[in-house]
Amino acid sequence: MQNENNYILFVILSGVIAMAFAFWKTSWINRQKEGNERMQFIGKSIADGAMAFLRAEYRILAVFVVAVAFILGYANSGRSDSSALISLSFIVGASASGLAGFLGMRVATKANNRTTHAAETSLAKALNVAFSGGAVMGLSVVGLGVLGLGILFYVYKSMEIFNNDTSMILNVLSGFSLGASSIALFARVGGGIYTKAADVGADLVGKVESGIPEDHPLNPATIADNVGDNVGDVAGMGADLFESYVGSIIGSMVLGSTLFAYGVGFDISFVILPLVIAGAGIIVSIIGTFMVSVKDGGDPQKGLNQGEFGSGIIMVAVIYFLITSLLPEKFTTQEGAGVTYDSLGVFYATIIGLFGGLGIGKITEYYTGTGTKPVMSITKQSMTGPATNIIAGLGIGMESTAVPVIIISGSIMGAYHFAGLYGIAMAALGMLANTGIQLAVDAYGPISDNAGGIAEMAELPKEVRERTDKLDAVGNTTAAIGKGFAIGSAALTALALFAAFKVKTGIDIINISDPMVMAGLFIGGMLPFLFSSMAMGAVGRAAMAMIEEVRRQFKEIPELKKALEIMNLKKREDWSEEDNKVYNDALGKAEHGKCVEISTESAIREMLLPGLLAVVTPVVVGFAPRMFGSNQGPEILGGLLAGVTVTGVCMAIFQSNSGGAWDNAKKMIEEGVEIDGQKLSKGSEAHKAAVVGDTVGDPFKDTSGPSLNILIKLMSVVSLVIAPLIK
Amino acid sequence: MQNENNYILFVILSGVIAMAFAFWKTSWINRQKEGNERMQFIGKSIADGAMAFLRAEYRILAVFVVAVAFILGYANSGRSDSSALISLSFIVGASASGLAGFLGMRVATKANNRTTHAAETSLAKALNVAFSGGAVMGLSVVGLGVLGLGILFYVYKSMEIFNNDTSMILNVLSGFSLGASSIALFARVGGGIYTKAADVGADLVGKVESGIPEDHPLNPATIADNVGDNVGDVAGMGADLFESYVGSIIGSMVLGSTLFAYGVGFDISFVILPLVIAGAGIIVSIIGTFMVSVKDGGDPQKGLNQGEFGSGIIMVAVIYFLITSLLPEKFTTQEGAGVTYDSLGVFYATIIGLFGGLGIGKITEYYTGTGTKPVMSITKQSMTGPATNIIAGLGIGMESTAVPVIIISGSIMGAYHFAGLYGIAMAALGMLANTGIQLAVDAYGPISDNAGGIAEMAELPKEVRERTDKLDAVGNTTAAIGKGFAIGSAALTALALFAAFKVKTGIDIINISDPMVMAGLFIGGMLPFLFSSMAMGAVGRAAMAMIEEVRRQFKEIPELKKALEIMNLKKREDWSEEDNKVYNDALGKAEHGKCVEISTESAIREMLLPGLLAVVTPVVVGFAPRMFGSNQGPEILGGLLAGVTVTGVCMAIFQSNSGGAWDNAKKMIEEGVEIDGQKLSKGSEAHKAAVVGDTVGDPFKDTSGPSLNILIKLMSVVSLVIAPLIK
Repeated sequence: MQNENNYILFVILSGVIAMAFAFWKTSWINRQKEGNERMQFIGKSIADGAMAFLRAEYRILAVFVVAVAFILGYANSGRSDSSALISLSFIVGASASGLAGFLGMRVATKANNRTTHAAETSLAKALNVAFSGGAVMGLSVVGLGVLGLGILFYVYKSMEIFNNDTSMILNVLSGFSLGASSIALFARVGGGIYTKAADVGADLVGKVESGIPEDHPLNPATIADNVGDNVGDVAGMGADLFESYVGSIIGSMVLGSTLFAYGVGFDISFVILPLVIAGAGIIVSIIGTFMVSVKDGGDPQKGLNQGEFGSGIIMVAVIYFLITSLLPEKFTTQEGAGVTYDSLGVFYATIIGLFGGLGIGKITEYYTGTGTKPVMSITKQSMTGPATNIIAGLGIGMESTAVPVIIISGSIMGAYHFAGLYGIAMAALGMLANTGIQLAVDAYGPISDNAGGIAEMAELPKEVRERTDKLDAVGNTTAAIGKGFAIGSAALTALALFAAFKVKTGIDIINISDPMVMAGLFIGGMLPFLFSSMAMGAVGRAAMAMIEEVRRQFKEIPELKKALEIMNLKKREDWSEEDNKVYNDALGKAEHGKCVEISTESAIREMLLPGLLAVVTPVVVGFAPRMFGSNQGPEILGGLLAGVTVTGVCMAIFQSNSGGAWDNAKKMIEEGVEIDGQKLSKGSEAHKAAVVGDTVGDPFKDTSGPSLNILIKLMSVVSLVIAPLIK
Repeated sequence: MQNENNYILFVILSGVIAMAFAFWKTSWINRQKEGNERMQFIGKSIADGAMAFLRAEYRILAVFVVAVAFILGYANSGRSDSSALISLSFIVGASASGLAGFLGMRVATKANNRTTHAAETSLAKALNVAFSGGAVMGLSVVGLGVLGLGILFYVYKSMEIFNNDTSMILNVLSGFSLGASSIALFARVGGGIYTKAADVGADLVGKVESGIPEDHPLNPATIADNVGDNVGDVAGMGADLFESYVGSIIGSMVLGSTLFAYGVGFDISFVILPLVIAGAGIIVSIIGTFMVSVKDGGDPQKGLNQGEFGSGIIMVAVIYFLITSLLPEKFTTQEGAGVTYDSLGVFYATIIGLFGGLGIGKITEYYTGTGTKPVMSITKQSMTGPATNIIAGLGIGMESTAVPVIIISGSIMGAYHFAGLYGIAMAALGMLANTGIQLAVDAYGPISDNAGGIAEMAELPKEVRERTDKLDAVGNTTAAIGKGFAIGSAALTALALFAAFKVKTGIDIINISDPMVMAGLFIGGMLPFLFSSMAMGAVGRAAMAMIEEVRRQFKEIPELKKALEIMNLKKREDWSEEDNKVYNDALGKAEHGKCVEISTESAIREMLLPGLLAVVTPVVVGFAPRMFGSNQGPEILGGLLAGVTVTGVCMAIFQSNSGGAWDNAKKMIEEGVEIDGQKLSKGSEAHKAAVVGDTVGDPFKDTSGPSLNILIKLMSVVSLVIAPLIK
């Protein structure tokens, strides 16, 4: 490759374009109107709460980042002049991840009440605002990702101490991925705990015990609940996808560099290709955002599909063009006995990833979508009570692992057949090539959700809430597809990192019939169970604290107590003037700030242990065998990684889909479904049973489930980073 | 070894002694009195129902056995003169397993009302009858196991076509293990579905909807419920332990034979040692049964402990003696680069297994025992409703995988360190050496449970039920320890079979960093999820059918309808003569037979699919790659086995312990526990929540959880059997 620097500059440029686009969209959103005073106040409370959480979280994480950077630098300092620079990569990666979360959340907390206001006029306008918010998030994530990687790669390449040794540069660059993954895990776990504690607290005391509607202004936990949507679903998801995106790029770069590790004919095209595809994906994503539009009275689902599938098709063409023009037509690697592949094979592998992700998404939709057979069966089982609802949901979730795992295995085999290990990495990249627009669609969901909450709290007319609900509902389908890509790419990326780990530790094989490796496999397989139990326990404890606080306020704040009594006694139409006065007096008396504080504190405290488990375990397993005089550390660690990947993927699918199916089974009853000639509705016994399922599903689908995706990759990347040290 | 035949004859003799002992105990039980006419009638109904199920089950399984025997014979016929004899081993193994289930169940259905009758006089007498019933079961299982293996081994050894080739003999003998495992899986799954369908049906319509007490004679499902205890907990568990026992013996024999596969100095002592230890274990178990006794007013727990721990200590001494006298003091194997071990190392490995099993048992007790911290936390979370109860239970179950998996990994590493792969197999054997008495203690539980049911149905005085409840309760602790041994030995046996599989397929390594192996690992890891979902779905469907039948009877049988009305209107003390007449008229009107039929049909129908999944998958994965021109079948299958073992162990622990903990959390509330100064009791909201947890836990702990242990081994043994064919 003659003009490699030009390609890298193109990548950096695409990152700049992404940030400029995000900036332009943000200022457009800022120019939209926020609605009446009450809406402004609510919007501000949510934004303040969210920022307070982020500040508290980042303060803790800053300590973690500095400490790890120091250890990384120290541990690597002896090896070569350049290797301590891994600390720099780590800090940049962690900061970029944090910044992506911050930017996305800031715009989301601005877009939410503006979406509500727009929904007062029309659905189309509301979609436009909400989707613009999502687009800022999406483009910030990919923009910061390629900018960070592109600039660091460019700088390292031009530094003399690296002597243009790509392998060493990638060693150091992998710190970027480590930074992104560790921040992501903490953000996902912390955000997940926050949002579920607030949600359960608000629901259990507000809705169930005190009988006031969801998102009611008198419920002290509502602001925390809405803050939770932002810190969990927006910032958490942003950090999550940032690390997936970065991980898949780095994974393919490393494998591209080791393809010819033992042979002659090293070709940097294979290393640069992933970056270039990512850069091109940004441009395609931006084009995709312009395809999203809906006319008034039209179907918002169609609008989103246009953008997502339209850009998907363009992406396939772009990938074909880039692969065939950048890579040599035929190339012989040192894998096995020098297999020969061709560039078309790399294209096929990438496309296998894309279709695999789509397939998993469709299966996810089947198992969790409203009205599908599995969800209907849960609805039916709700009629005999909560126990049968729970058994059905657990069963569905477990069953739903089958096809995705077969697709993942098939993709692995197919991609490997067409382009070896590099093909597997490229398949993962293929799933994430247009993350920009995918994330825009994903992030648009919680913004619409928040907009609905604000409509409720500001007591706006019913049709406003109906419009935001419509927006929220269509987001679910596309979100399911997004989840498919997330899980599929996690498995493939972990595999790519695993392969890279093997190369970097210099071990040829990891023999599973060696009992030491098997012991590692067992422990690895158990970790997702332990991790999930920690996350669920944390949600339970945090929710308990929230429940107690809400109960306290309802008991000790006289205005609230009085207003609640009136609300439970008479319908609003029958209120006297006196009643209305009492009610209006109570507004603003709920101490929302206290609830926000409690959620923040619990989430920060509880995220540490599971996070550290993920970071520390590979280090211990990698180094400990030495103390017993064994040099099998790398193999045992390899077994551990394989175990954690396999169980982690299954547990993630199981938990996410059980949670999703329970959620929609409940929604179907609320919408009034008919089963065996019996009409179910809100307030029925079946509904109560379905609410139990939904509550159980909450930590499953929003805390432990999605965190497992990150856990898998974080452990792989930690192993990759320590690989040269345990060699 | 000079006198090997003498040792084998000793083994066969010990099997004969076991059967004689079982026969002697059975006739003693037959001589005990059955109590009044009503008790006799109930006892007969249960016995008839249980036998009807066994007949129906064995009829189907006979077809399966003949079909598989035919396929096995056909597939192996071309290889050598002797290899088709594997069909014979298979049929003998399947029949022995079936016979063990039959004998155990027959005596259990005789011991149950005799225990009730004995409990009318004293606790000590009742313990004696119930434990004698358990002892028959325990000794039948181990007796048939060593008899079958011993005789077949002896016969094959003396047949000319085998030419005294131990390796070939063991190839053929492995069919015995395959027969035992496949019958065990069907029996466990079928029995599990039966018992839970009947249980849920009886509880949900009887207790919850109609408000009549548990085990009430007017409930049409009570007989089915009590039959379920016998077919699930007795026959199912018997078949389960039979296959564990046989699997661990065969596993160590095969590894003993391959220790020196490539070297000179083959020593048959290593092959015969496992059989001899098993034979000696029988004698020790019989001695142990004589140590079990309790004085009136004494603690039955102590009585059982004396027997179990007493025989455990003797067993350690016996194992030491046998290993040091049978094995050479030092021996060099061909593993790795010809490592040298000593006989003491083999002893250590065996003891590591014994202590590992004990450790896992203690942890199981901690996570599921009444009054422990985890169970208390579930009880506490029941106060905020079923959702928090479920979340807590799932969390506890997941957490409880951690220490057992670490113990298993540690045992693997330790046993391997001391005696190589052979050591791992011997560790598994160590866990199961005194299965005889362990199973006696396990099987005594359901007999006492049944005795309590009969006391209720026959409307005996309260103190009788109290005595049987006391017997039942103490069985739980020892049962927890039994579970620990079952799970630990399953993991180690699977590993031993895995190692044997590798040797038989002639592959040197199974490289987990080969993407094809990784794909196998993924699919294997997913199977326990799919299998569990099938088992849970089956329970759900079968329970639904039962619920409908009980509802129908309550509606359509006029006598039942009237009696129920009276029971719900007034307390028994206030009944008029007319009321009593109506009630007495209704007795005997419930159509118990219909419910027994429904449970039987559903269980038989539903056990097939999960059972076939386990048998067919390894065959497909082993042979399919050939069709695509790949010779990687054995490696991919190896990956699959590793995946299924790791996930299977974790899922088994998770589900069994969640179920156990929910069960005891409910029991604690029923006994009236006090939490945070609040006294919980039967009928409270917390109790209702705990009942939900218990119902969810039922299929977890009695159907899918324990079946996974068998699934793991069955898939390993299927692979071992087809190993020479896919080589």
